[in-house]
Amino acid sequence: MLHAVIPAGGSGTRLWPLSRAGNPKFLHPLTGTAQTLLQATVSRLEHICPLSDIMVVTGVAHAAAVARQLPDLPERNIVVEPSPRDSCAAIGLAAALIARQDPQAIMGSFPGDHLVRDTSRLVEVLEQAAAGAKQGLLMTVGITPTHPETGYGYLECGEGLDWPVRRVDQFKEKPSHAVATQYLESGRYLWNAGMFVWRVDVFLAELQRQQPSLHDGLMRIVAAWDTDRDTVMGEIWPTLTKISIDYAVMEGAAAAGLVATVPGDFGWTDVGDFHAVAEALPADEFGNVLVGDDKSDVVLHDVTGSIIVPQSGRLVAALGVSEIIVVDTPDAVLVCRRDRAQDVKHLVDELKNRGDHRV
Amino acid sequence: MLHAVIPAGGSGTRLWPLSRAGNPKFLHPLTGTAQTLLQATVSRLEHICPLSDIMVVTGVAHAAAVARQLPDLPERNIVVEPSPRDSCAAIGLAAALIARQDPQAIMGSFPGDHLVRDTSRLVEVLEQAAAGAKQGLLMTVGITPTHPETGYGYLECGEGLDWPVRRVDQFKEKPSHAVATQYLESGRYLWNAGMFVWRVDVFLAELQRQQPSLHDGLMRIVAAWDTDRDTVMGEIWPTLTKISIDYAVMEGAAAAGLVATVPGDFGWTDVGDFHAVAEALPADEFGNVLVGDDKSDVVLHDVTGSIIVPQSGRLVAALGVSEIIVVDTPDAVLVCRRDRAQDVKHLVDELKNRGDHRV
Repeated sequence: MLHAVIPAGGSGTRLWPLSRAGNPKFLHPLTGTAQTLLQATVSRLEHICPLSDIMVVTGVAHAAAVARQLPDLPERNIVVEPSPRDSCAAIGLAAALIARQDPQAIMGSFPGDHLVRDTSRLVEVLEQAAAGAKQGLLMTVGITPTHPETGYGYLECGEGLDWPVRRVDQFKEKPSHAVATQYLESGRYLWNAGMFVWRVDVFLAELQRQQPSLHDGLMRIVAAWDTDRDTVMGEIWPTLTKISIDYAVMEGAAAAGLVATVPGDFGWTDVGDFHAVAEALPADEFGNVLVGDDKSDVVLHDVTGSIIVPQSGRLVAALGVSEIIVVDTPDAVLVCRRDRAQDVKHLVDELKNRGDHRV
Repeated sequence: MLHAVIPAGGSGTRLWPLSRAGNPKFLHPLTGTAQTLLQATVSRLEHICPLSDIMVVTGVAHAAAVARQLPDLPERNIVVEPSPRDSCAAIGLAAALIARQDPQAIMGSFPGDHLVRDTSRLVEVLEQAAAGAKQGLLMTVGITPTHPETGYGYLECGEGLDWPVRRVDQFKEKPSHAVATQYLESGRYLWNAGMFVWRVDVFLAELQRQQPSLHDGLMRIVAAWDTDRDTVMGEIWPTLTKISIDYAVMEGAAAAGLVATVPGDFGWTDVGDFHAVAEALPADEFGNVLVGDDKSDVVLHDVTGSIIVPQSGRLVAALGVSEIIVVDTPDAVLVCRRDRAQDVKHLVDELKNRGDHRV
């Protein structure tokens, strides 16, 4: 049905101290099973394409971990960026590599660190998206919002195309609570899940139109891919514009009427913070969620609504607390009120300012 | 003025995971300085007697730590029990050893794991107690209660003797809150601080009267002290009655009219739980108390009224929590509501039942 690309980057600041620059979110088992988020993403995608058509684009620091977490993924499908150049370069490189083999191939790009509960519903939505892509649209997957979430970007939808496809008029940044409430009430907004489906020729034409130098650089890299990849990557990659795919291509394409979306509801979460992690996992009778399978090392007395993340092999004991997050790692422990989970990024900012190496 | 004995035993269950059977409370710096509770106890007692007249009675597991924490204490003053036989055997042995040198010596026994803020006031009280002891009374030090504490035992006082000495009619176990409130209102009860001052001949006579076999065993050990100590200790010590000094001697002596007390108010705490630890230490502007001096490894955001005990070298981060205790040690971390500090012992009981080695 399509070629699947997983840009596996980012560190997941709000999941500190579990997630670090050196040990990012997609490498962690936050799925309620022993699978990491990356492994679970690949497992889902295997419902729509063979493993040979799944490509992971990741950084030098994580290439080895990705290779080991996905032992059956062909080596040529693990593309390593020499340095982080944001999502447009990563996704653009994947598109150009796929286009070498099949210029009109349909490609989907899927974050490697999100959770989806209902894979069969996801497959249906992607089939609908692929149909739109075949017609020359840059397709996104929009999540039907269930509450006025301020942690996600939104897609502003216009008139309907062939059901259930809808035109996307604008990409909207994370809103305030008041604005998010308006979005929800209007019925015209979907959450932007960061999933894209398009024909690679259509995407590359838009990339060339809006980001000609980035497009040119990627073409030169791909031309040398089988002959002199290391040298040419080493020269050109660091010069590529560092820009997200939304800013670089999608917003301009939406303004040109080229972007559409399929609304979906398949139990999606971006697992952005520990509260979101826990919402996606089963809780015990007291509303407590244990993340990871090392449960013998946790003892809870009169604890309710809390999230315990034991990841150090040490004993984690809690007594008389409610709505608390405890994350225990080998070199740092976090204790946080559950409704402040989003603010963990501020803690990490402070640690970065201090020059602390544990971020 | 007197010979000072410090029975240094007990594990401090309510201070888990800082305090363990293998690393008990008196060995920890809970004083607000780098001094451990044991070191601070010895420093205080040096105001009333020379180091050569201070004796520590401790267990085999802690003898080395005691010797290193008190490098100037003469080796002969570190008495090691082959096994725990509760406080009567420990204090009785010390009394018998002192009596060998000076049968009418005055001896004081002081827990090694309490805190005292006002040493000069303590010295005054001990001088008054020593005066009572000289007259043949078994003296205790009673703390004037400030609130209906349910965590301490009480002394029920009778008629006054020479001011400020008061007769002790009865020893009372830890009361319920209602009973503690009655005690406080009556004005006739003092907290039992577990400090005793007596003439060793008077004490040993009472021991002989109430616990003749225990007395006899101790006499046989002391007779062999300079010749065949190890063998005789090894034979007799394990056979000694395992009983506390209160039950074994003091309650019976009180019934016989032999016990008196000096009320004192010198900023005493038994440092029984983390709440008590924090009460005795200075708090920052947000009411937070850091125990230990490794403050560079703590980062607090919007945290109030909390107690942070970083003892692992790891980073401890807290966000948005109030009235919380966080204790971080190399193999266990505890998160506890501050008003549940007393209940940490229940957690430890559960861990013991599980056979967990980290207690």
